[in-house]
Parts: sequence; C-alpha cells; structure tokens
Amino acid sequence: MALLQRFSCRRFAPAPLTDSEMGHLLEAARWAPSAGNVQPWRFVAVTSPRRRQSLARSAGQEFVADAPVVIAVCAVPEESARRYGERGRSLYVLQDTAAATQNILIAASELGLASCWVGAFDEASAAKALGLPAGWRPVALVPVGHPLEAPPRRERRPATEIVIFLTD
Amino acid sequence: MALLQRFSCRRFAPAPLTDSEMGHLLEAARWAPSAGNVQPWRFVAVTSPRRRQSLARSAGQEFVADAPVVIAVCAVPEESARRYGERGRSLYVLQDTAAATQNILIAASELGLASCWVGAFDEASAAKALGLPAGWRPVALVPVGHPLEAPPRRERRPATEIVIFLTD
Repeated sequence: MALLQRFSCRRFAPAPLTDSEMGHLLEAARWAPSAGNVQPWRFVAVTSPRRRQSLARSAGQEFVADAPVVIAVCAVPEESARRYGERGRSLYVLQDTAAATQNILIAASELGLASCWVGAFDEASAAKALGLPAGWRPVALVPVGHPLEAPPRRERRPATEIVIFLTD
Repeated sequence: MALLQRFSCRRFAPAPLTDSEMGHLLEAARWAPSAGNVQPWRFVAVTSPRRRQSLARSAGQEFVADAPVVIAVCAVPEESARRYGERGRSLYVLQDTAAATQNILIAASELGLASCWVGAFDEASAAKALGLPAGWRPVALVPVGHPLEAPPRRERRPATEIVIFLTD
C-alpha cells in the first residue's frame, strides 16, 4: 500500500514536477471526502522561488523552500459554518482539509515523489506570502519533490496501545 | 489510485471482515502522520451489534449499524496540547486523527471493501456507547464492510474553482 510507503521527506532535488504529476496531486486533493460534500478548501501550488522562501520563513524550516513546489492547503471555515454552524467551523473544515492533505501525501508517494506535512508555521505570515483573500486560512504546507533521502519511517506506538476491540 | 476509487458507501452486506482485513485497516491508521509523531489517537473497532446500534443512534443514521464493524476514531487532545499548547488542542489533534481516518478509508478501498466517514453524531452518546475514558473524544465513525452498492461518486467543484498556481 502506498500509504504504508509514505515517509516525511525533508531533502528535495530541485527538479520540477511534470504537469502530469502536479495534476495527479491536485486531483487527489480534489476528490477527498468532506462533510456534506461542501469542499471547504483551496489549494495554492507555489513554484515561485521567492514565495517558497517566504513560506519557509513562516515555518522556520528552510527545507520547505528547497522543494520545487509547495502546496498550501487552505481552509474556508465559513463555507462549513454556513451549513453546519460551530461544528463545521471548528471541526469539519479541519477534518476535510486534513483528508485532502493526506490524499496529496499518498498520491505523491504513489508517484515516486516525496512530501512532508508541515503544520507548524505562522498563519498570518503564510497567508501574506500566498496573498490569500480574507476568510482563507492556511492549515498545512506540503512541499513536494523528488526525494534526496529515504530515511527510515519513524516508529509508531504498538497497536496494543492504541487499538481496542469491542465485541460484546 | 485507490484514493480516486473510494466512494461513500451506506449499504453493507453483513459478512464480517477477516482478521487480515481488519489488521490492514488498523495498520493504515497507525502509520498516519501526526504533528511531532505524537499519535494522539485511539481506534475502537466495534463489532458488537448492540454497540453498533447505539453508535447508529448517536449519528441518527441506521446504516451505521449494518456494517460488520464500525471503527470509532478518537482524539486525545491533551496529548497534543502537552507538546503544542492550544494549537495542538484545537488544530493538530484534529488533523492527525483526520489523516488516520482518511488512511482507513483508502485502505478499505484498496481491499475491495467500502466505508463512509460519519462526522455528524452526538459525541457524548457515542462516547458512552464506546465506554470511552475521560479525555478521549470520538471525532469520526467509520463503518466498514462489503458494499451492497456502488453509487456514482458525488461531483466535485472543478479544479479551476479551488486551485491557484503561484509562479511569480
């Protein structure tokens, strides 16, 4: 399963993605599930070097700028709130955009590319670097490219710690 | 790509999953990414008929009880908050558990099974049906089984509405 091959990559070759690769990543995002099929998301594919630098600064992680593209996943909370009120604004919109982000990561892995889910960044700085309109909230930065490393996957808690079966 | 084949299924055959299938779904969840690899999640695999009924009632959706297993994805917000404070509690823990949920959906699709992401349910009722300890929050219910339907995937917004390229 591609989703078990996925790893977090922080060293990228400068070679750009092909249009076909980029298209696959964005299709994967577009077909993610969302509450009520509201699709409260936008995807900003950033190849501009200066904007990638700005995004890297917003995250305090230089490697973000090394990837040939950074896909900024943005939430539009009011689109979810319009249908679902506070649960939409504080839960669904974050789940929906996270599902889309995970789809991008898995699609990248299937294409032999690599990526990393960057969640720690200054949202206001990132929004400025991206030129986002009001109401769009950047919730994940996903650098994608050809990996220059294949680090071992980080360990996980054993299943016995995190899984419960209820049969009764 | 399995993630493009995925659809939301609401009619399931009663046949149970094999242990191997169940193991694959939970491995997919376990290997999801999480902020700082904190893994602030628990997965409760419910085969008990009476508990599936209770979960279905908490969601107001009878089909939830028809699936041979319902995987309740639970967040443990304080595990994220301990490392990341409020951003962990209100963002990362929801993203992490959503990534794990999406992995379950995709893994089910890869196995020829089907599933549905149920996000609308009464959390207190679901927690009671699951017998969750304090601090665990159910954030998604995922019925999984053999599909009795193959509905067309619901349409999505065109890419032109949700994708922006920044090259400059």
